[in-house]
Amino acid sequence: MLAKTLAAFASAVCLCCPAFAADQAPASGAGAANPYAGNIVRLSMITVDPAQLDAYKVMAAEVGRESMKREPGVRVLYSMQEQKDPTRFYILEIYASEAAYKHHIQTAHFQKYKQGTLKMVKDLQLIDCDPLVPEALIKRENVP
Amino acid sequence: MLAKTLAAFASAVCLCCPAFAADQAPASGAGAANPYAGNIVRLSMITVDPAQLDAYKVMAAEVGRESMKREPGVRVLYSMQEQKDPTRFYILEIYASEAAYKHHIQTAHFQKYKQGTLKMVKDLQLIDCDPLVPEALIKRENVP
Repeated sequence: MLAKTLAAFASAVCLCCPAFAADQAPASGAGAANPYAGNIVRLSMITVDPAQLDAYKVMAAEVGRESMKREPGVRVLYSMQEQKDPTRFYILEIYASEAAYKHHIQTAHFQKYKQGTLKMVKDLQLIDCDPLVPEALIKRENVP
Repeated sequence: MLAKTLAAFASAVCLCCPAFAADQAPASGAGAANPYAGNIVRLSMITVDPAQLDAYKVMAAEVGRESMKREPGVRVLYSMQEQKDPTRFYILEIYASEAAYKHHIQTAHFQKYKQGTLKMVKDLQLIDCDPLVPEALIKRENVP
């Protein structure tokens, strides 16, 4: 009985570990064999007006936080500023599916970012990619 | 008593959830307030000989898997191939600390990759970055 209780509890605790739970969920549809098959992986390269770096960083951080918090289909939105040339930014974007991406660009937080940074962004390159090791996204093991 | 047992068990289960556990561990030193403070974030941009793409992908995938599996200090090693120009690769590398990075480049699996791809890699740019939202690395919440 105790074993059964603990097993049920362990299951509940694992559901409370969202990174792990999200990682195991199918990308789209029920019973998908490969949860990464439908993922969209993109690297955005952005050049920002030097006079507006701080303002851009605030908006980029906000859309990152909001998207990761509110959109289950946004698996990663990780934004970086280049140290050597601080006008250069990179964002690794991973969406669970095409539908998740389409939903993302219609959200209020994305539109706020998009419209709010129109005059800050001097150049934007969207580089669609295929991951070499899709499951490497989130560390599963911590073997010394 | 049962509550205490469950609490201890929950703690043990959380340790079994490596993404979460690693995410909460200090980057370096004991009791670091910000587990991301010492992180090294780098985007590597690599151009590969078109005649050796498949061989490169095998080696890059292997070093990614080995590093993520064997090195606690390698938080992310996520490699991507550009769809439009398949000779272009990008690797997001996040190390817990400078020491973790130095350890990484001395490992057998990294050296195998480095030496094995010397004649495949035509260009290599290492772009050191600062993350805008360091904690966005791993999704913590899955709010609909």
